[in-house]
Amino acid sequence: MMEQLKAKMRAEGSVIDTHVLKVDTFLNHQVDPIFMLSMAEEWKRRLGDEKITKIVTLESSGIAPALILAQLYGVEMIFARKKKSITMDDSIYTADVYSYTKKLSHTITISKSFLTEQDHVLIIDDFLANGEAALGLCDVIEQSGATIAAIGIVIEKSFQPGRQKLLEKNYRVESLARIASLNNGEITFIEEKT
Amino acid sequence: MMEQLKAKMRAEGSVIDTHVLKVDTFLNHQVDPIFMLSMAEEWKRRLGDEKITKIVTLESSGIAPALILAQLYGVEMIFARKKKSITMDDSIYTADVYSYTKKLSHTITISKSFLTEQDHVLIIDDFLANGEAALGLCDVIEQSGATIAAIGIVIEKSFQPGRQKLLEKNYRVESLARIASLNNGEITFIEEKT
Repeated sequence: MMEQLKAKMRAEGSVIDTHVLKVDTFLNHQVDPIFMLSMAEEWKRRLGDEKITKIVTLESSGIAPALILAQLYGVEMIFARKKKSITMDDSIYTADVYSYTKKLSHTITISKSFLTEQDHVLIIDDFLANGEAALGLCDVIEQSGATIAAIGIVIEKSFQPGRQKLLEKNYRVESLARIASLNNGEITFIEEKT
Repeated sequence: MMEQLKAKMRAEGSVIDTHVLKVDTFLNHQVDPIFMLSMAEEWKRRLGDEKITKIVTLESSGIAPALILAQLYGVEMIFARKKKSITMDDSIYTADVYSYTKKLSHTITISKSFLTEQDHVLIIDDFLANGEAALGLCDVIEQSGATIAAIGIVIEKSFQPGRQKLLEKNYRVESLARIASLNNGEITFIEEKT
């Protein structure tokens, strides 16, 4: 890993424009459980000795990788819910998240009963671009007093500011593939030693 | 199984009213991968020798049980996407689904590239109530020429017409728990020999 992911992105991904990569065949619509396991094993390897107590993601496309990782760690997975608008509700933590892609805000929520200050959370999401969703997840999780071990990302668009925003707040980011650009209909990766 | 599911529903479920049971602790918000595996094993046991080639569900709450089942069968899982409105798109199968709970219609879509007439599909969903979502899934799947082995449901509200509608169209329904009523704040199950 994650040469396998890069190969899959090259073979099956469609570069829609300079900011959008479609990966419906293995991540956002159709999911191969065996491939999900490879990704989960890679995150777990990178996290080493961290004692993870919960995996948290955001519906919908993060659920599959997050669940397989939860299976590996033997912990529960929580998927934060996205809502248009929220009526006051004392039983949930909430954060507002702006989507640059959809040009609208929504509220993400996690029930207060699922996280405590004893929890050490690994966040999983499919894409990292502007970082708004990841920051919103960090916000709702930290409202509970829980700590965040890292943010595990399948595909990072490194030409957008998300990673930088998360690093500035001292979060650890573990992206399995980092895209330098999507120019000219091609995926260019940031090459890293791992 | 599925005494374990019934016990969990009794212990952790909240009867909100005569039609709504909240099961956020293990199905719709927080997910226990080990429990998902028990459910998946039960569906696989019931399906016996059926040669399943794809698991299909609808985002979001069906994704977790569908993925673990896909893992068991060693096949891919597809989650149909829900959209508010659809611009014409030749690359997808679509069906309109009315939600009685939310009192609005949305369109569910599956990419044409993921299903063929060689596929034999097991549909998975978290709840069966009026059956509109399940019928919509059957519709989009059959547009591809694929056949449907069964519809696997976690929790069936047997006091609503969904099961009957599916049986009338000769679909096989495999619900892990069947609720006779949610009256007086209590869950009453339909007891079955399995």
